[in-house]
This record gives sequence, C-alpha cells and structure tokens, in this order.
Amino acid sequence: MLQIGLDAGGTSTRATVVTADGRCVGYAKGSGGNPISSGKERALASITTTIDRALEQAESSVHDVDVIVAAMAGSNADDRQGWLLEALAARGFSGRLGIDSDLLATYFSGAFSSFGYAIVSGTGAAVIRVENGQLAATSDGLGWLLGDAGSGFWIGHQVTLAALAHVDGRGPATALTPRLMDELGVAPGGTRSNGRPAELPRMIGALYAMRPVELAQFAPLAFAESEDAVARSILDQAGTLLAHSVDAVHTQPGPLVIGGSVLAQPGRLTTTFHDELAARGITPEISPVADGAVGSALLALREAGTNITGDLYHSVTDSLARLR
Amino acid sequence: MLQIGLDAGGTSTRATVVTADGRCVGYAKGSGGNPISSGKERALASITTTIDRALEQAESSVHDVDVIVAAMAGSNADDRQGWLLEALAARGFSGRLGIDSDLLATYFSGAFSSFGYAIVSGTGAAVIRVENGQLAATSDGLGWLLGDAGSGFWIGHQVTLAALAHVDGRGPATALTPRLMDELGVAPGGTRSNGRPAELPRMIGALYAMRPVELAQFAPLAFAESEDAVARSILDQAGTLLAHSVDAVHTQPGPLVIGGSVLAQPGRLTTTFHDELAARGITPEISPVADGAVGSALLALREAGTNITGDLYHSVTDSLARLR
Repeated sequence: MLQIGLDAGGTSTRATVVTADGRCVGYAKGSGGNPISSGKERALASITTTIDRALEQAESSVHDVDVIVAAMAGSNADDRQGWLLEALAARGFSGRLGIDSDLLATYFSGAFSSFGYAIVSGTGAAVIRVENGQLAATSDGLGWLLGDAGSGFWIGHQVTLAALAHVDGRGPATALTPRLMDELGVAPGGTRSNGRPAELPRMIGALYAMRPVELAQFAPLAFAESEDAVARSILDQAGTLLAHSVDAVHTQPGPLVIGGSVLAQPGRLTTTFHDELAARGITPEISPVADGAVGSALLALREAGTNITGDLYHSVTDSLARLR
Repeated sequence: MLQIGLDAGGTSTRATVVTADGRCVGYAKGSGGNPISSGKERALASITTTIDRALEQAESSVHDVDVIVAAMAGSNADDRQGWLLEALAARGFSGRLGIDSDLLATYFSGAFSSFGYAIVSGTGAAVIRVENGQLAATSDGLGWLLGDAGSGFWIGHQVTLAALAHVDGRGPATALTPRLMDELGVAPGGTRSNGRPAELPRMIGALYAMRPVELAQFAPLAFAESEDAVARSILDQAGTLLAHSVDAVHTQPGPLVIGGSVLAQPGRLTTTFHDELAARGITPEISPVADGAVGSALLALREAGTNITGDLYHSVTDSLARLR
C-alpha cells in the first residue's frame, strides 16, 4: 500500500505519494488548499486535483492508498476531517484520513528528532515546540488583526503605516513612501484638500480597497530599502518579535526548522532574529525548509505505523528531491 | 431667514436651527448621519428626520431656511453634496447647502478665534489646525487600519493584543485578560488543543467574528484597569500618540478644542497627553466640547454671510444650552 502526505497551504498544495519504506514515487503541486483562505470548494478542487496528479506520476490509483495525512493551518481539525474525507471517499478512497498541523509538517521537513522547534513566518507567523514527535506548544499564529507578530503581514502593515505617517507629517521621511506610492499607482503632487497632501486620500483609498491581509504584499519594500532607517527599524523589530515568539515556547535545546519567506532571505531581519535568539541563550541547529512536503509524507508514514527515524527522513528527503 | 447647522456623526446627528443674529430656536438629535458608517439611505433618513424635528421646535419650515451646513467626516465633500442636496430639495429646500469638516464644527463649538486647533479622539482620532477660520492642516484620522493613533479603536485593539499575548505566553500577565474574556463570554479553562490554552481559540473566534472597528468597545477596559501595568502602558502610549498628532500640525500658540470620549475623562491618559504637550512646549488654553452642534450652527451663520465673533459664539452657545 501507498501513503500520501498533503501539505495544504494558503497559496499552494503539495501531494507526495510515498511507499512504506519511505520512497517518494509521486509528487504534484497545485493551488491553495486551505478551506479558510481559499473556501471549501476551491480548496477541495485543488486537493483532489493535486492528489490525482501525484498518483498519476506514481502510476497508481487512490485504491492503492491506505493513509492520507493532510497538514493544514487552523485549529478545528475535527470540522475539516468530515468534508475532506467525504470528498476523498467519493473518489474511491477507503483508507484513513489524518489531519495534522501544517507547522508539524514544516518541522518534519527539516528535522527527524522527536524534540525541537519550528517557526514559520510567511503571511502569518507562528512557532511550535515538538515533544515526542507531537505538537506540544504553539506561540502566536493568531492572524493579522490579533497577532502574527513579525510576519509578512506585520511588515507590510508597518511599511504602510510608516509611509502614511511620513506623508501625514507625523513620521520621519522614508524611502518606503515613493516605493509604496509606486506600488499603489498613486502619482505625487496635486492640490491639498482638507489640510492634507493630495497623495494622502488617494493612498488611503487604494489601501482600504484591499483586504487587510493583502498588505503583506508590501513586506518586500522593507527588504528592498534595508538601508533606510525606517525600513531597518521595521526589519529589526520583526526579527526581535519572531525571536520573542520562539523564546515563548522554548524549554530546552533542540533543532529549529525555519519556513516561510520572511526568514528565508539573509539580511538585516535574519541577523537580528539570530542575535536576539542568542541574547536569550538560544543557539539551535537551524534547518531552513521550502515547504512541508517531506514532513507531510513522514506524518503519513507515521500514521500508517512507521516510526520517523533518521534513515526514513533521509530516504523521503532524497527521493522527493529527485522527483521535483 | 433661518440657518441650520448639521453635525452628522457616525453615532448621532444634531440639527440646530439658528436666526441670523445667533439665537438657536430649534434643536434635535437623531441617529448616525454619516453615509460612510451608516450607509446613504439610513444617513439620509436620520438627517431629514432630525432637521424636521428641529424645525418643528423652531415652529418653522424648510422654506424659511436659506442655508444648511452639514459638518461631516471624510474628505470627498463633493460626492456627498449631490445626494444630500437632492434629498433636501425634494423636501422643499431651495437654499444653499455647504459641507464642512466635522473637526471644524468641533473647533467652533469650543473656540471662536480664527486660529487654533481641535483634536477629536473617539472611535477614530484626528487633529486639525484652523487658520483664518478655515481648516489649514490635518493630522491622522486615517482610519483603524492605517492610523487613528491613540483613538478608542487603537486602545481597544491594544487591549485585545495584550490579553491574547498574555494567554499565548508571549506577554506579561494583565488584569485586562479576565476583563476581556468576560466581555467575550469566554469561560476560563478546558483542554489544551494544538499546544494552546483552551481559551485562546475561543477568544480568537469571538474577536474575528466582529468587524475590526468594533474592537473600540474594549477601550473602557484599559480605563477601568488603570492601576494594571499593561493597561497603564497602553493609556500612556495613547496619550503620547495623541500629543504627537497635535505636535505634527502645531505652528504657533492657539486654543485647543478637545472632543471625543477618549480625552473626555480625567486620568492617566489625559495627564500623559497634557504632559507630553508641555514637553513639546505646547501649553494651550483647553476647551472640552461634547459635540459639534454649536460649531455647525456657527458655520451655517458664516455661510449665510455673518462673521464668527465672540459675541456670536456666546449667543449661539448660550441659546443652544437653554434649548437642550
């Protein structure tokens, strides 16, 4: 029998078909598969299509699969199991469906030790501690309005606040302002109205027309202007906040797996992050990972009864690397 | 002929009927009259009903009115004039309709000098500088997502962030947490899930079910817990941010008119606000006002050709006080 690990994220879904001895024989990547961000219907369509394509590469069918583990963000795993299992059953799947945290899949994509940590900072930001191979503690991941400190949204939001404070005369001049105006398609100049620069209402209008979480798209402006004092301060604060979130769940030494775009690029933010960790006495072995594909496959193997060992981890990692 | 000043806010609308020599002869208060927060239809219904009731008290009709000035938040005054004038014309109004800033009405509710400042911190927060009786500069007022630093929303948002950081283990313990849980109807205790305290997903769920701006309702929790170190820090920061917004438009001494609930209550926040102003060399004569009714009536008189003087200001203020 085969197992499938599914890494269903907000922007992409990865399905990995693996044999019981840890050989990846099929892999496919599709669009967003998280029901919260994509909606149930689109998430389902993406998940089933991606599984079909991975099985096609494996020259197998869903009837050869006894376990699927879906790694997904969000806490109401029980709610999700119902609709997903139903849809998979309708396509002939008669095995077991497990739901796991996407952060646990990130962790096992970069580590096989039963104790350690994973941090993901993409649009959102969260940290977990893994004990006995299970998620033992989570820090942050509370979403754009209530948390996600140091995330892509957080940085993008700070970029807009800094640029608007500059235009509004409340904050220092920053190179982020022309960058943001450019992104928003707002030209400088024009007649002041209501005692405000002409650009300001146009920027405000363009920004409020977006969904708040879309402000994450302005995070790259801070990275692009890392010599600017205001941008540098934003990057420093983000690095410090992320280190603080690690510290909140840290109990004893263990590997730290790092996912998400924010910590993927070397520079000011990652340097601050590591310095702030070190200042707290945290100097872990670091494993950066691109996604949770390896981890989701390992979680599927574990669900099917296989222990996660170093050999299994390397077998899955190496065979998947050859597939993609 | 008579003039009408209309103070059309997000939660209430005030119509004041005034004679050319500054005697208020009719006054009424209705529900929210701002088209952005209430929707055009409900705003219109509130405005026309409130005007009708004020005219009834004045024993007059809209045919006796040659000028109406509506003081409203928002910058696209031109857009609003059309639909409002049309609705008033349909009811027999054939005079002139002026649109002015709600902050200017706040200013003239507490001052008559042609130079000075007004700050309003309610759900949102903004400061203006008045020159030659006109709005010359605005600071902040950029809305909950992009500004309103030190506003009721800002304070309420910080209250939720502090309580969630406490529950999440990222922040210090604070008395705001049980207060917020109480407001949200979330009971303490329960089984941890996904490495999180049971309360956390319930609090998050309740908070994301609200419109973000509704977080302003939690601002009173900070005032109620002003002995708590975390709450105190939030109040101090809010007072500092509001002083900073005043500083951003301050050029020379002038009276400062203060509106909105946040600065209406004596205590930690207002003390910090005044201290921070003084630290910037700003020690204005302060006039707190409850609303913009007097100012809107003065703006209507001015639109009809009467200069705003101390005598006119006192006449409108005193006669309106007798009416309500």
